[in-house]
Amino acid sequence: MRPTARSTPVAFTTDDYAARMKRAVEDAVRAGLSGLIVTPGPDLAWLTGYQPHLTERLTMLVLSPDQEPTMLVPLLERRDAEESGSASLISIVDWMDGDSPYEAARALLRHDGQFGISDSAWAMHIIGLQQILPGIGYRAITECLPMLRATKDPRELERLEAAGEAVDAAYNDVIGIRFAGRKETEVASELAGLLRLHGHEQVDFTVVGSGPNGANPHHGAGERLIEPGDTVVLDFGGLVFGYGSDTTRTVSVGESQALTRKVHAIVMQAQQAAVEAVRPGVTCEDIDRVAREVITDAGYGERFIHRTGHGIGMTTHEPPYIVKGESQPLVPGMCFSVEPGIYLPGEFGVRIEDIVTVTESGVKRLNNTSRALQIVE
Amino acid sequence: MRPTARSTPVAFTTDDYAARMKRAVEDAVRAGLSGLIVTPGPDLAWLTGYQPHLTERLTMLVLSPDQEPTMLVPLLERRDAEESGSASLISIVDWMDGDSPYEAARALLRHDGQFGISDSAWAMHIIGLQQILPGIGYRAITECLPMLRATKDPRELERLEAAGEAVDAAYNDVIGIRFAGRKETEVASELAGLLRLHGHEQVDFTVVGSGPNGANPHHGAGERLIEPGDTVVLDFGGLVFGYGSDTTRTVSVGESQALTRKVHAIVMQAQQAAVEAVRPGVTCEDIDRVAREVITDAGYGERFIHRTGHGIGMTTHEPPYIVKGESQPLVPGMCFSVEPGIYLPGEFGVRIEDIVTVTESGVKRLNNTSRALQIVE
Repeated sequence: MRPTARSTPVAFTTDDYAARMKRAVEDAVRAGLSGLIVTPGPDLAWLTGYQPHLTERLTMLVLSPDQEPTMLVPLLERRDAEESGSASLISIVDWMDGDSPYEAARALLRHDGQFGISDSAWAMHIIGLQQILPGIGYRAITECLPMLRATKDPRELERLEAAGEAVDAAYNDVIGIRFAGRKETEVASELAGLLRLHGHEQVDFTVVGSGPNGANPHHGAGERLIEPGDTVVLDFGGLVFGYGSDTTRTVSVGESQALTRKVHAIVMQAQQAAVEAVRPGVTCEDIDRVAREVITDAGYGERFIHRTGHGIGMTTHEPPYIVKGESQPLVPGMCFSVEPGIYLPGEFGVRIEDIVTVTESGVKRLNNTSRALQIVE
Repeated sequence: MRPTARSTPVAFTTDDYAARMKRAVEDAVRAGLSGLIVTPGPDLAWLTGYQPHLTERLTMLVLSPDQEPTMLVPLLERRDAEESGSASLISIVDWMDGDSPYEAARALLRHDGQFGISDSAWAMHIIGLQQILPGIGYRAITECLPMLRATKDPRELERLEAAGEAVDAAYNDVIGIRFAGRKETEVASELAGLLRLHGHEQVDFTVVGSGPNGANPHHGAGERLIEPGDTVVLDFGGLVFGYGSDTTRTVSVGESQALTRKVHAIVMQAQQAAVEAVRPGVTCEDIDRVAREVITDAGYGERFIHRTGHGIGMTTHEPPYIVKGESQPLVPGMCFSVEPGIYLPGEFGVRIEDIVTVTESGVKRLNNTSRALQIVE
């Protein structure tokens, strides 16, 4: 198990951040907004490179066509903010403990119109803003600009490809380790180590769902001892150069059961069909429907209890969502998971997941390990 | 450096959760609220023991005098929710991908009145609720029930004491390691290892602010090489049995500078005076004022640029905040930091921090390492 050698990608530049902020303002105006209020999280990191540690203290970037980008920060974060990659583009204003951050925010915002605000902005802060500026309407950025970060540029794709290679290397190693007789948590811990070995700076999840635990799509890893004959769902990922990896494979411990082989073949067929359907112009819900039809036709429609996929980038779950009702057409550069599954309560689950990216001509998988039902020891 | 032996505390029981939910409803009614909307985070964990992984999918517990506790969860989280320590007390309702979680939420809430909502509930969700139920007013739980989790019960205090012992053990070890000639990040990494060694299941921050970096109160740890003569601020903590530790000491690498000794003595005096002022009935802002007066009288008032402290429990920053304007009287069982500091830009910083708890008769420190200016190599 040798670590994957991988060179650090070129850093994002001030020009990258300027272009992103400019595009965000243009998109906001086109969506009828007076501006955007961006609080710490992936939108702020993407727009500015600034990733403060999370705190209850209000930090907000205001983007609008009326003024240069302006960011309100707690006084004691000011120096860190001034060192971010885009600081030269942003006017920084601070507020001090004991004063009202919402009073300070008042000067940065128009007092009417609609503003987009970060999805994960704290309710406490939006309530504070609503009280100080009752004339403003607020909308979640993902609701009004769902595709703000959805189309990845080549430098972002480079990072997502590196993440895919790293997570694939971890899978190819983990199928060589012992499963039978060990707890799920032990396998999960070893898997986490492999993710780090292959270049993940952060491990976000290592699902090891053995036997009946695999029938719970969001089971993590528990105390259950893995037994010969178990079907095991492995769903794992983290961050590589700030971008997410996420893949799922289902393995059999020793010789597989006939029902596992049958269900696995259906899921693999559904996943293949859905991936093959990906190309520019097809809608997100089309992809979901393609996967769901294969599973429904095979008689397991009721046992596919989640959407087919989610976008991925600086976060593991972001638009585009591959789900019924999402009529967004696919655009080259979008990256998302295709991960149908079948869950048989009390028995086992099967899920197969790759991250794919939309190309000019169709699709490219960022995960390329074998999707066949792998036998492990 | 031997790991600290510490036995696992008794688990919280269904009765604990029932009592907390009951008290939360009573407090809410007393505050004029129709109920509480609690989303994943520390309030939910404290009330129910349920700590789902964070997701953009809406999960919310509704507490009100009108109905038994009810929790809306994404369908694929239902099984995990049903396994939490308080599940027998809660009616669980689910919603499925593709449907509106806000439509599902409508049935759980009165359609008028004021609801308290978790501070860190996503803006996206509060906006969704405001659209579906425009007759409800929302207030941040911490604004209307700031002290909901502030008074710790004996089982919580046991955990906070264990966290204090663990972080103190890490400090007593870290002052024995080499500082001079090493990067801040190297010392921080070693400090993180010591926190884990002494029982932290999670390391949240390891600030190593050497020389001028120490003058930035929220500097983390950087590439700067620590030099002989540097003053270094060490501020570190994490979680032990789910409860936070947080302590700060300032050390000198080799012989200390006269200015460092002078400033350190002022901060130590301010911290001592503030701790000694802690007793039931004194207000939070009184404690801040006591610390600030010592520093102001010494001529450094302008260089103490943050509040004196913050509550601690299942999170590192929570009420009570020890800050100007916080007139909440102290109550036995409250736990918070007392951490005055002086920051000289371009030169160095000094901060000294202990977690204290209010007792019936006064105060008890949960951090008990020497507060003197420690010389390290």
